[in-house]
Amino acid sequence: MTPTPITLTDKFAQFEDYWNPRIIGELNDQHIKIAKVNGEFIWHSHAEEDELFIVVQGKLLMDFRDRTEEIHPGQLLVVPRGTEHRPRTEAETWIMMIEPKTTVNTGNVESERTRLDLEVL
Amino acid sequence: MTPTPITLTDKFAQFEDYWNPRIIGELNDQHIKIAKVNGEFIWHSHAEEDELFIVVQGKLLMDFRDRTEEIHPGQLLVVPRGTEHRPRTEAETWIMMIEPKTTVNTGNVESERTRLDLEVL
Repeated sequence: MTPTPITLTDKFAQFEDYWNPRIIGELNDQHIKIAKVNGEFIWHSHAEEDELFIVVQGKLLMDFRDRTEEIHPGQLLVVPRGTEHRPRTEAETWIMMIEPKTTVNTGNVESERTRLDLEVL
Repeated sequence: MTPTPITLTDKFAQFEDYWNPRIIGELNDQHIKIAKVNGEFIWHSHAEEDELFIVVQGKLLMDFRDRTEEIHPGQLLVVPRGTEHRPRTEAETWIMMIEPKTTVNTGNVESERTRLDLEVL
């Protein structure tokens, strides 16, 4: 494998739909994923996987059972395994996630929003 | 552990020295590290660890044995395990790295530039 820089804007330009993560890279048995998100996702948790969220554009609200955190570009949020969370936005937001390859977007919840066999860009 | 957003500029404001990574977070047995870098580092590789480089400010040049890649803000570079590389810059540059906790900054090379027991910010 030849290491080549990945340009985020090039990857985000390749899709428009919300809450449908794409894989843009991998390291150490994890995927680097990106997604465009807007509105409210579902409450879920991941039993075995910590998730890193990075905001590329916009603002991500992360609901926890006891409070909400805001994540802006230039900030990171790690959601530890087992922690219930609900991503949410007030407008279109572009996010990057790093998480184990085993991670399913809806975690412990099977839903019409579950996405498997993610596209690799 | 309470998930709290990490603000990169706050973390970078806490140190000035070059090539001395700090730990700002962790997930899945990896550390999230940041460093200010300037000039040329040493050639090295990591036998067991893939490394993700993200440029927060400035420009990172990554020398490989057969070519050089430039990484700008908004780009990512994964250096796979076993790949010889030499980070280099033309001016002060701020980088973020995600890599297994076992990763030593100079990889297979023990050097006066090796940093162990990294500070946690």
